[in-house]
Amino acid sequence: MFITFEGGEGSGKTTLIANIKRILFEKGFDCITTREPGGSFVAEAIRTVVLDPIYKGVSKYTEALLYAASRAQHLDDVIIPALKENKIVICDRFLDSSLAYQAYGRDLGIDFVLAVNTYALKYIPDLTFYIDIAPEIGLERIKTRSKKDRLDNEANTFHTKVREGYLKLVDLYTERIIKIDGKLPIVEIEEIIMKKLEEKLWN
Amino acid sequence: MFITFEGGEGSGKTTLIANIKRILFEKGFDCITTREPGGSFVAEAIRTVVLDPIYKGVSKYTEALLYAASRAQHLDDVIIPALKENKIVICDRFLDSSLAYQAYGRDLGIDFVLAVNTYALKYIPDLTFYIDIAPEIGLERIKTRSKKDRLDNEANTFHTKVREGYLKLVDLYTERIIKIDGKLPIVEIEEIIMKKLEEKLWN
Repeated sequence: MFITFEGGEGSGKTTLIANIKRILFEKGFDCITTREPGGSFVAEAIRTVVLDPIYKGVSKYTEALLYAASRAQHLDDVIIPALKENKIVICDRFLDSSLAYQAYGRDLGIDFVLAVNTYALKYIPDLTFYIDIAPEIGLERIKTRSKKDRLDNEANTFHTKVREGYLKLVDLYTERIIKIDGKLPIVEIEEIIMKKLEEKLWN
Repeated sequence: MFITFEGGEGSGKTTLIANIKRILFEKGFDCITTREPGGSFVAEAIRTVVLDPIYKGVSKYTEALLYAASRAQHLDDVIIPALKENKIVICDRFLDSSLAYQAYGRDLGIDFVLAVNTYALKYIPDLTFYIDIAPEIGLERIKTRSKKDRLDNEANTFHTKVREGYLKLVDLYTERIIKIDGKLPIVEIEEIIMKKLEEKLWN
């Protein structure tokens, strides 16, 4: 089973994924967690170019292509091998991030972003949890992070467009994407996620 | 004017480009030379990931996307600004390399490679010189190079497919691509190129 987590900056995905992994382990499931961009040797090298603030001139086309490149490599190096071993793969960000951030946030359009992600379209997640949070709240939460990346420094208007993009995706892919209110207490969010996962796992 | 040079490994492009640049300078033309992948700070960082042999696991999709990413960035950082200043831009490899190496050499197909290069399609070269050389001869020429990249180490069959790809492109784009026999003495090749360039420059 292939599960992805999506959401804007400060939505709390990282903590949630760690907790869900622990719960699944305790229930006896073999589960790996990974992240995008990056997740393997080559993919992490690409992540550096796309996120390190020293590469500040990265254009919106370059950015979309680098995310897609990192994703293709990450699929081959990590996700596909784990799925073949019947593991549950939990990935922090996947194709929906490119749709929300590049197609909507950067106005590159759905068609271009889907075209460059042809390879990833063969591996649509079974379930996607979108943790919805207003950018004002999310960005406030990460204000104290010592290491900010290029996207954390983007203007509020960009993050608002990204959120609108996510909400359009929730409407487009009603079966796959579960929208969860990111302001809920973390235990409540975990309960919602585990309920959905158990429905899928026992189906 | 935007001019590109294409050809397999060991076709002699680098020397040719340096000589043509000198001749154009002597004739009073303002001309810059650049190369792909790379050519700017961000694009060179991408070049490292795509060509350095330490990143040996790069998949064919990742490779095609990284070349396209490097190209988009190189256009914004170097080629478009120079063209706006009315300079002659001579580029060592461009979109045709992706078509020959990725679409044909790696069997990714023309449609996928053109789709990921949507941005570059806005900047089709005015003239492209394809220096045709049999892989056996080209690879023999570069055998003594101390620093080999990931592609230099590819099997002969790959380089043969790349050449076949280039020959298909010559047939497809008869107006733009000038095929030149890479076994000719370099002064003769330079004469052919200068004659074509002068036709364009005085038109």
